[in-house]
Amino acid sequence: MVRINSTLAPFSTDAFRDGKFLTVTDSDVRGKWSVFFFYPADFTFVCPTELEDLADHQAEFDKLGVEIYGVSTDKHFTHKAWHDTSPAIGKIKYTMLGDPTAAISKSFDVYIEEAGMADRGTFLLDPEGKVQYIEITSGGVGRSATELLDKVRAAQYVAANPGEVCPAKWKEGSTTLKPSLDLIGKI
Amino acid sequence: MVRINSTLAPFSTDAFRDGKFLTVTDSDVRGKWSVFFFYPADFTFVCPTELEDLADHQAEFDKLGVEIYGVSTDKHFTHKAWHDTSPAIGKIKYTMLGDPTAAISKSFDVYIEEAGMADRGTFLLDPEGKVQYIEITSGGVGRSATELLDKVRAAQYVAANPGEVCPAKWKEGSTTLKPSLDLIGKI
Amino acid sequence: MVRINSTLAPFSTDAFRDGKFLTVTDSDVRGKWSVFFFYPADFTFVCPTELEDLADHQAEFDKLGVEIYGVSTDKHFTHKAWHDTSPAIGKIKYTMLGDPTAAISKSFDVYIEEAGMADRGTFLLDPEGKVQYIEITSGGVGRSATELLDKVRAAQYVAANPGEVCPAKWKEGSTTLKPSLDLIGKI
Amino acid sequence: MVRINSTLAPFSTDAFRDGKFLTVTDSDVRGKWSVFFFYPADFTFVCPTELEDLADHQAEFDKLGVEIYGVSTDKHFTHKAWHDTSPAIGKIKYTMLGDPTAAISKSFDVYIEEAGMADRGTFLLDPEGKVQYIEITSGGVGRSATELLDKVRAAQYVAANPGEVCPAKWKEGSTTLKPSLDLIGKI
Amino acid sequence: MVRINSTLAPFSTDAFRDGKFLTVTDSDVRGKWSVFFFYPADFTFVCPTELEDLADHQAEFDKLGVEIYGVSTDKHFTHKAWHDTSPAIGKIKYTMLGDPTAAISKSFDVYIEEAGMADRGTFLLDPEGKVQYIEITSGGVGRSATELLDKVRAAQYVAANPGEVCPAKWKEGSTTLKPSLDLIGKI
Amino acid sequence: MVRINSTLAPFSTDAFRDGKFLTVTDSDVRGKWSVFFFYPADFTFVCPTELEDLADHQAEFDKLGVEIYGVSTDKHFTHKAWHDTSPAIGKIKYTMLGDPTAAISKSFDVYIEEAGMADRGTFLLDPEGKVQYIEITSGGVGRSATELLDKVRAAQYVAANPGEVCPAKWKEGSTTLKPSLDLIGKI
Amino acid sequence: MVRINSTLAPFSTDAFRDGKFLTVTDSDVRGKWSVFFFYPADFTFVCPTELEDLADHQAEFDKLGVEIYGVSTDKHFTHKAWHDTSPAIGKIKYTMLGDPTAAISKSFDVYIEEAGMADRGTFLLDPEGKVQYIEITSGGVGRSATELLDKVRAAQYVAANPGEVCPAKWKEGSTTLKPSLDLIGKI
Amino acid sequence: MVRINSTLAPFSTDAFRDGKFLTVTDSDVRGKWSVFFFYPADFTFVCPTELEDLADHQAEFDKLGVEIYGVSTDKHFTHKAWHDTSPAIGKIKYTMLGDPTAAISKSFDVYIEEAGMADRGTFLLDPEGKVQYIEITSGGVGRSATELLDKVRAAQYVAANPGEVCPAKWKEGSTTLKPSLDLIGKI
Amino acid sequence: MVRINSTLAPFSTDAFRDGKFLTVTDSDVRGKWSVFFFYPADFTFVCPTELEDLADHQAEFDKLGVEIYGVSTDKHFTHKAWHDTSPAIGKIKYTMLGDPTAAISKSFDVYIEEAGMADRGTFLLDPEGKVQYIEITSGGVGRSATELLDKVRAAQYVAANPGEVCPAKWKEGSTTLKPSLDLIGKI
Amino acid sequence: MVRINSTLAPFSTDAFRDGKFLTVTDSDVRGKWSVFFFYPADFTFVCPTELEDLADHQAEFDKLGVEIYGVSTDKHFTHKAWHDTSPAIGKIKYTMLGDPTAAISKSFDVYIEEAGMADRGTFLLDPEGKVQYIEITSGGVGRSATELLDKVRAAQYVAANPGEVCPAKWKEGSTTLKPSLDLIGKI
Repeated sequence: MVRINSTLAPFSTDAFRDGKFLTVTDSDVRGKWSVFFFYPADFTFVCPTELEDLADHQAEFDKLGVEIYGVSTDKHFTHKAWHDTSPAIGKIKYTMLGDPTAAISKSFDVYIEEAGMADRGTFLLDPEGKVQYIEITSGGVGRSATELLDKVRAAQYVAANPGEVCPAKWKEGSTTLKPSLDLIGKI
Repeated sequence: MVRINSTLAPFSTDAFRDGKFLTVTDSDVRGKWSVFFFYPADFTFVCPTELEDLADHQAEFDKLGVEIYGVSTDKHFTHKAWHDTSPAIGKIKYTMLGDPTAAISKSFDVYIEEAGMADRGTFLLDPEGKVQYIEITSGGVGRSATELLDKVRAAQYVAANPGEVCPAKWKEGSTTLKPSLDLIGKI
Repeated sequence: MVRINSTLAPFSTDAFRDGKFLTVTDSDVRGKWSVFFFYPADFTFVCPTELEDLADHQAEFDKLGVEIYGVSTDKHFTHKAWHDTSPAIGKIKYTMLGDPTAAISKSFDVYIEEAGMADRGTFLLDPEGKVQYIEITSGGVGRSATELLDKVRAAQYVAANPGEVCPAKWKEGSTTLKPSLDLIGKI
Repeated sequence: MVRINSTLAPFSTDAFRDGKFLTVTDSDVRGKWSVFFFYPADFTFVCPTELEDLADHQAEFDKLGVEIYGVSTDKHFTHKAWHDTSPAIGKIKYTMLGDPTAAISKSFDVYIEEAGMADRGTFLLDPEGKVQYIEITSGGVGRSATELLDKVRAAQYVAANPGEVCPAKWKEGSTTLKPSLDLIGKI
Repeated sequence: MVRINSTLAPFSTDAFRDGKFLTVTDSDVRGKWSVFFFYPADFTFVCPTELEDLADHQAEFDKLGVEIYGVSTDKHFTHKAWHDTSPAIGKIKYTMLGDPTAAISKSFDVYIEEAGMADRGTFLLDPEGKVQYIEITSGGVGRSATELLDKVRAAQYVAANPGEVCPAKWKEGSTTLKPSLDLIGKI
Repeated sequence: MVRINSTLAPFSTDAFRDGKFLTVTDSDVRGKWSVFFFYPADFTFVCPTELEDLADHQAEFDKLGVEIYGVSTDKHFTHKAWHDTSPAIGKIKYTMLGDPTAAISKSFDVYIEEAGMADRGTFLLDPEGKVQYIEITSGGVGRSATELLDKVRAAQYVAANPGEVCPAKWKEGSTTLKPSLDLIGKI
Repeated sequence: MVRINSTLAPFSTDAFRDGKFLTVTDSDVRGKWSVFFFYPADFTFVCPTELEDLADHQAEFDKLGVEIYGVSTDKHFTHKAWHDTSPAIGKIKYTMLGDPTAAISKSFDVYIEEAGMADRGTFLLDPEGKVQYIEITSGGVGRSATELLDKVRAAQYVAANPGEVCPAKWKEGSTTLKPSLDLIGKI
Repeated sequence: MVRINSTLAPFSTDAFRDGKFLTVTDSDVRGKWSVFFFYPADFTFVCPTELEDLADHQAEFDKLGVEIYGVSTDKHFTHKAWHDTSPAIGKIKYTMLGDPTAAISKSFDVYIEEAGMADRGTFLLDPEGKVQYIEITSGGVGRSATELLDKVRAAQYVAANPGEVCPAKWKEGSTTLKPSLDLIGKI
Repeated sequence: MVRINSTLAPFSTDAFRDGKFLTVTDSDVRGKWSVFFFYPADFTFVCPTELEDLADHQAEFDKLGVEIYGVSTDKHFTHKAWHDTSPAIGKIKYTMLGDPTAAISKSFDVYIEEAGMADRGTFLLDPEGKVQYIEITSGGVGRSATELLDKVRAAQYVAANPGEVCPAKWKEGSTTLKPSLDLIGKI
Repeated sequence: MVRINSTLAPFSTDAFRDGKFLTVTDSDVRGKWSVFFFYPADFTFVCPTELEDLADHQAEFDKLGVEIYGVSTDKHFTHKAWHDTSPAIGKIKYTMLGDPTAAISKSFDVYIEEAGMADRGTFLLDPEGKVQYIEITSGGVGRSATELLDKVRAAQYVAANPGEVCPAKWKEGSTTLKPSLDLIGKI
């Protein structure tokens, strides 16, 4: 199963970005922080609001050097058609991966066999392709781009400052903790 | 693997709550909304801030009818000792489950075999014991009680209003969506 | 493998017809002659001309009592979106089955595992759900609705007249052959 | 199972052509377009009309560079005897393969185990021995040589013009489609 | 393997006799003495002389109450065609079994897998369907109907006279041996 | 099972010939035509007449260059004792193989497991050790040396004249057939 | 393997006794003391002296109520022939079992697979068919009937007097030992 | 199982001889004739009389160059204690092997699993370690050293005179038989 | 493996006690406290001092109601002989179990396969046959009866007073601990 | 299972000693005598008295060159917390191994699967890591440091004086036994 520190599995698939079709592989993903943002199906209800929310924060993700990959088991043809017709989806500048074989969804353990669709899973990967954050919500509950940005910042802070840890409800700029033997049982 | 809508596995374990030792089983859990809040080990660093953050919001969880279960692979003796000595942990009024056999951690797929500890996983279960929300963070990144409360509210709203869905970044009081065939491709 | 006289496998799937979503199962199919018309993907090139060609002959299929099922591994949401936006597809009155799990495509042996799509296969089934005609074409070659209608008529003629057979290039109204021991080696 | 793009399996068998017995192998077949035309048995009813229909269009197949192989599970001795006695079969100039071991019929998945005969399957192969068109009819329904010629022409056109596709009911001389990203959802 | 006293396996097949097609099963065979006379193929060379030789002795076989079954892996259609065209075969009045599935040839262990034909095996069966005599010759060597009649007579004599045995080169009317303990080592 | 063209299996056994014991192996057999003549047991009834019949034709077998091997599951000691006491067996000049382990009987598929004896099987082998003729008779029916000589002559003729075949009831000096394509269906 | 107290396995075989052939089974054996006396082959060298030695002491075995069974892998026909011709064997009045299938030899573990013969094993069985004495000698060493009689007497004495044991070199009439706790370590 | 001509299995064990403990292995045994003399247990009843009987004939075994090994599943400590306390056992000069693991008893197939003891088996081995004589008696029946000496002499005579065999009841000095073809069936 | 609270396995064996042989089974053992005292072999060195030490404290074990079972893989005959000859062992009044099959030694996991002996293991069992104390020492180190008596007293005290525990170095009459939640982390 | 002379299995774990965290592996253990002292859980009742008892005898263990390892399935964090808060545990100077994965407890066969804790097992290892003494007590019974010191001294004496053994209840300075063949059965 996909766990914290699991490594991105190899894949190669057709995708849609910037009005063009392209092929994306796992090696294209590595080398930068990335978010895999799974959703059940194009042309549905909660999904576009979540995808639009991400699109609205594109600049912030860019600033943090994070590449976003929207993924459903639809084909890249369908991604283009949805992009062409939906005002919300039309805003998207990040990559939309087609996953009609469900290979990527399965490798992240979010494929629902009996429906042919993926669960709403968000996975933050570090530049080595290792999972650092996982969030999965049930069908009717939307996700939040700003919360995701907080998680990205905390994970990047910890990665950059190996000797420190971010306590609960930490946000950029808050104090961190420097673990010390003397603190055990004192906090 | 534990997935959205997975059902709570049977378990029976020793726990600590209100200065007393007690036995908790999966049937004690069902019938109310519940949160299983896994952390690696007692007497460590990030953990107490996360557990304290939850303790500080006990009243809100109570109001939502949500029972909290803190879980580590430590024994209930150790939970008591930590509660007795740590000011942060001493605030806790919710149940702390001992999981020395790792049976519960394994059933939620957060057990790290080579360390003998659990990953930092949060699982929201509905009164039928079905998982409705999953969040797992890497070692150094803390979780937020207020964000968790938002997820609880959204999930409870959707459960109470089957015909509606909460869009991205929904908070209590926000508008919801009523799915309709005509909206397809229009949003 | 699917062969002449193979029987329709059980299935249940979401479909789109007449501007509505509905559930279609194998027992809905039985009792009438039917055509399963597989194509690779919505929002592509050859497919719409083939589907439109069928749509243009809807009246003749109706007259022969034949129900048409267009099938791709796309979801019913996508079928609706394509129907809403494409002038050719918009003409379609027959049922478009979503097959995102590929269960139907696999049961007819036209699923291309490595692409997540179906081959262009046409299957004529009699009212018992038994296959009476198979045609499968490579990617770039379109199929013909009028030829299919000829096959339907021949198959229905043979079914209705057990003692006669339709010779090569038979069309409705042509002479049939009545097999007789004396003809062996004489034709 | 035999699929679009399946490759011709190796075989070696006794055959009859031009009043002579000869051995034919899969390597004799490659290098030209070819049609494998299976039928159940020599000295029966529908079969001779189908075989004669092909014989009547020999010149057109020759012009397209297509080699025809009639195949049944009969032996080459029987093919010769039928050729000698039947006026219809006597016209045939193409190769009649004996398949008494059913090796070829099995490799094309048209062998009916319980009858010891082949289904009426037609397979068009390109010069690399890859299947480009499949048609299989039930017992009493004859096939048409002119329809087959249309399929050959479409397949050869697509092979010769990689950037174009033949729409439904395409016949030689008709317009083809040049796939373009802009056409998606527009047709 | 088929051995002396092996019992006829169940079968059901299409056959040709007296200008008609009929179905023959193993239960049709039992109740009388019978000969299964396998040969490789219709429309070949040695075979017709052997089959004609049997046909020329039909009266004698009838007198002994022996039913003859000519068997090849050809179909009953081919048997009829051969009967219609060959002067030698045209004399045949006994049953010609079609064995295109090779089921009967295999049950007598005379099927040559790589050729799809049977070896030249003769099997004499008693009324219980038990094998009492076996002869198998290589490809180019013909069998003799008069020798076979001798074997039938000897086998019938032994069956009718349980206490006696036919010595070497016995012919009808010759002396038989009555086994006695005193003869051991004396002959 | 042993079939036409099966090859002699390796063996080594004790035998009796010319008043002496000797060891015979499969390589002693190859290089000449040979007959393996199986019988159930020494000191029994039919057997000595068959063995004597062969002995009486020794000169003719010698002339054809055929070596005879009498085989039973008795030991060579018993063969000698029988030869010493029985007038019929005393005439024998050919080799009598002891087969107490039943290795040879099993390799020719004539071993009757439940009796520990061999069936009455005759096998003609060519100089390469390949079986060219098989005859097996039930318990009470004797075999004929003169018929066997006829089979030897036919097999040797065919071996010496590859382009010709011996028709039914052929005897030395009779006409043979030269297969020709034109004869098919004409005989 | 056969051991002291192993029970006689079921068998049924043809035998020779008193100039007659008869069938002997394991149930014929039970109810009396018996000796199974295996030897390699009829018409050999050591064997007749051993068998004759037994025959010479027939009266004594009769007196002790012991039935003797001579057994080789030869057939009963051969036993009779040997009895008829050998002066030594002609004296035998006990039963000679034919064991051509080696079933009995195998059940006593004396069958030599590679020779098709039995080892020289002697087995004394009590009336329940249980082995009470075993002696097996190599090929060139003969056995002694008088020693065997001594063993029979000792075994019968012990069976009749449960509280006593026969010491080494005991012969009928000698003192026996009555086991007593006080004797331990005193003898 | 152990058979005539079985070879001594490898072993290494603690033993008692001449008032000393020593280690004995299978390679110590080879090179001389040897007797393995198994008995159930030290400090019991029949056993000492058998062992004493052997001890009384030590000189004769020495003269024949035969080494004796008494074997029980007792330990060498127990062998010494028995030797020290029992007058009969105290006479023994041959080697007493301890076999507490039952490895040797098992390799000679005389181990009684349910009792943890060995049967009374005597095995004579030639200098190559091959078994030449086997005798096994039931619990209450003693063995005889003089009979064993006779067997040793016969086996050594046969080994020394390959062309001769010892007939039944042969004793040293008696006539032997020289096998000859002419004797078959004459004795 | 045998663990604290493992239950005594079923057994039945011959034993020596009070100058008599008797049979002891696991059901004889249950109902009282018992000690299984394993040692390698009778007639050795450390063992008698350990066994004598136990014998010297027989009265105290009797007072505590504890039955002692000395166990080695020797036979009961050997136990008696040792008892008869050794002054130290002669004192023993408790039961000495023979375990020549090693069944009991194996069930307590103290059997040393390669030596055929048991390790020096002491096992205290409560009246239900459950193991309450285990001690195993290496070959050269003796055990102490007085220490064992202390362990018996502690185990019996705990069994009799469920709410109390014996601290380290507890001896009869010392203070015990009454576990209480308040003591956690205070001792 | 762990037995006398079993060798320490490889391990690597986090530990607490002298107020610091450190990593301890099996190779750190070898080279000195060592004691592995397992107990169920930190912050419980019997355990601290046993651990304190060991701590009180630290000087004596030091003098004997014995390294002590306290082991429970708790983590090293918990060990530190217990050391910080418990007066008894605070005295400890030896190493406390954390074994949250139970790897060490399992390798010594003291892990109680259903409780996630270890039994109270003491294991004395020599400098090669081989087990020389084992003691395991049930839950409520404490162990004694002085008895353990006695065992260490006896084991070290035997290791240093290979030709001598310590009799029962041996203590340092007592007489030892020098095994001699003459003593067998005399003690």
